[in-house]
Amino acid sequence: MKAIQGGITAPKGFKAAGVKAGIKKSGKEDLTVIYSPSPCAAAALFTTNSFAAAGVQVSRKVAAKGTAQAVVVNSGCANSCTGDQGLADAKAMGHLTAALLGLADDDVFVASTGIIGVNLPMAKVIDGIRRAVAELSETGHEKALQGIMTTDTFPKVAAYEFALGGETARVAGIAKGAGMIHPNLATLLSFVTTDAAISPAALKQALAAAVDVSFNSITVDGDMSTNDTLCVLANGQAGNKTIESPADPAYGEFVAALTAVCTDLAKLVVRDGEGATKFLEITVKGAASYADAKTAAMAVAHSPLVKTAFFGQDPNWGRILCAVGYSGAKVEPVKSSLALGGIIVAKNGMNAAADAKALQKVMAAKDIAVEIELGVGSASATVWTCDFSYEYVKINADYST
Amino acid sequence: MKAIQGGITAPKGFKAAGVKAGIKKSGKEDLTVIYSPSPCAAAALFTTNSFAAAGVQVSRKVAAKGTAQAVVVNSGCANSCTGDQGLADAKAMGHLTAALLGLADDDVFVASTGIIGVNLPMAKVIDGIRRAVAELSETGHEKALQGIMTTDTFPKVAAYEFALGGETARVAGIAKGAGMIHPNLATLLSFVTTDAAISPAALKQALAAAVDVSFNSITVDGDMSTNDTLCVLANGQAGNKTIESPADPAYGEFVAALTAVCTDLAKLVVRDGEGATKFLEITVKGAASYADAKTAAMAVAHSPLVKTAFFGQDPNWGRILCAVGYSGAKVEPVKSSLALGGIIVAKNGMNAAADAKALQKVMAAKDIAVEIELGVGSASATVWTCDFSYEYVKINADYST
Repeated sequence: MKAIQGGITAPKGFKAAGVKAGIKKSGKEDLTVIYSPSPCAAAALFTTNSFAAAGVQVSRKVAAKGTAQAVVVNSGCANSCTGDQGLADAKAMGHLTAALLGLADDDVFVASTGIIGVNLPMAKVIDGIRRAVAELSETGHEKALQGIMTTDTFPKVAAYEFALGGETARVAGIAKGAGMIHPNLATLLSFVTTDAAISPAALKQALAAAVDVSFNSITVDGDMSTNDTLCVLANGQAGNKTIESPADPAYGEFVAALTAVCTDLAKLVVRDGEGATKFLEITVKGAASYADAKTAAMAVAHSPLVKTAFFGQDPNWGRILCAVGYSGAKVEPVKSSLALGGIIVAKNGMNAAADAKALQKVMAAKDIAVEIELGVGSASATVWTCDFSYEYVKINADYST
Repeated sequence: MKAIQGGITAPKGFKAAGVKAGIKKSGKEDLTVIYSPSPCAAAALFTTNSFAAAGVQVSRKVAAKGTAQAVVVNSGCANSCTGDQGLADAKAMGHLTAALLGLADDDVFVASTGIIGVNLPMAKVIDGIRRAVAELSETGHEKALQGIMTTDTFPKVAAYEFALGGETARVAGIAKGAGMIHPNLATLLSFVTTDAAISPAALKQALAAAVDVSFNSITVDGDMSTNDTLCVLANGQAGNKTIESPADPAYGEFVAALTAVCTDLAKLVVRDGEGATKFLEITVKGAASYADAKTAAMAVAHSPLVKTAFFGQDPNWGRILCAVGYSGAKVEPVKSSLALGGIIVAKNGMNAAADAKALQKVMAAKDIAVEIELGVGSASATVWTCDFSYEYVKINADYST
């Protein structure tokens, strides 16, 4: 497996475009279309928020069908908490895209991101879709990526080439957002393309496996948006024998590549967390199960006390063990230990009297590894998060609706 | 039921004292003893943190027995993550107090609060216990309250007189802390005295009921300390016929009074949340069940996005509905609504176009009522929290272990 250029149009047979429809106040690209002329297996995961945006409601039906050929997405307006009008607008987005591409309505995923509670400016959206479809090209990945960004400070893209059942295949993805951390500009969106040949059922399983250890292993502020959407289109152009189920030897190759793309994107999202000054990799080992390890790691990653301590470069091990302790994960305090940047700061559940100067150096770095041993079993999990800074409070308090 | 003076020595037959043992760097009172010369029914609730402090481990056995006569508590050192030595020290605290008062070891609750991972200065603790026991008096409540405080900016006390089975009884409590919000100075501690006559089994049930709608309905930062302890001693001096079970007509009277004390103390804890500039009362109505209503309310209370919005005086209703939506509580978006300070800001899950000036006035106040209608059933719940300010980040980042 090797990293390649070309973004989401690197996999064979995909086209993309991003245009300036005038939805965003900034005037930047705000409408993206991704398209495969040949049919694709499709899978997607969505927010579980009860106030799911209109686009999510439309896209759920596409995902349930398991095949699709296009994605239409706008930034600048979330089309969430917009009632019947919002749902009609989302359907209209999908319908127009489908009609222009000669597809059925349920071949098109629809997604939106931006301000909540405001209706889409449909005249601009319609004009934007027409232009984006006209501009679709095999080199359109950069503008397509620009079109899904909101408060992102850098674009998030990953692409790999990998061996798949004796053939060479490609998988690529783009993402926006940093959890729901910016005022009313919610949402994690990610769109993945691959030329692997895989059945809808196997793709669905592969996506769930990849997301569990990537997008579902990060947190910025613990809030889950109304619009979170992750779609994968697999058009089979790589020519491998179609992967029908996890029993297929090539399934593991595909999951590994898909996981690599999702993990890269998830880490980039954390690095772009609003106000973040630290990138924390939290690994929990010695757990009774993967679920327990992840529960403990996510409790540490969610704790405002832990996150503010890292912002303050304070090696406050008591707060970290405390979060592990209330997580619900099984832990043997007397067998537990904790290391920061490889330096053991707590052992057997007690202070390990670590060298203060060496610790200071660890805490001053941007990237910090946190390793926790639960002393119970042999399972482990890794999650990623950022710290909690003045800037986070400022960004989220100073905004005025 | 009426509020009375006299703190935890207002109920008949209770004595208390607080002395300066020299554990706290500030030199203030840091060792408290509470005592009833007559036997008491006892109940207690503790942190569920796996790294429970030594004092919690000792006190759990006292609570399991259901009778007790004294509490010994120190501030300035949590005696948590201190291993075998810590457990021996906590037992020694309880044993010395018991011996001086002529009690069995398991008649004495032991609690600690303060820095994690440091052993107790036992010479100072022993000297402090001797002096506190010598100073026990029926007017010692104020110094006893001082002795349990750490970063509290004001003392937290509540006391009520109430009719109980035809007699007059009293219930009073003191508390410290604001969730686990100060660096290594963790812990919510609360000690409640009452002269009501009630069986240990009924007291245990009454305490669980009172705590569910008070201490378990508040959050400051969502972190749960290693030392949280709430103990109740009931010595029966009010002379009422002993309440044996919830079937007793007087049980309801007792629960109401105990709930009043716990609710007053819980709200004071929130008002003293580090860096808090707002006091938020969040009520969820129209829920399928009390559990659902509380789940939704706590999700809103925990959301960093909601808390920073209130700090910024931003009536950001999208964030509040979003938190309700991911809470897991059943909600009918099209029947949901949201009011801030009595002004409806969202109706049927959409923007209600509230008057901006009136809203501005609501958001500028210190106390703000948040009312959420789920549109599903008829159950409701109320929780309390504070906002998330620069000061919170500052306090928790600037501290250095």
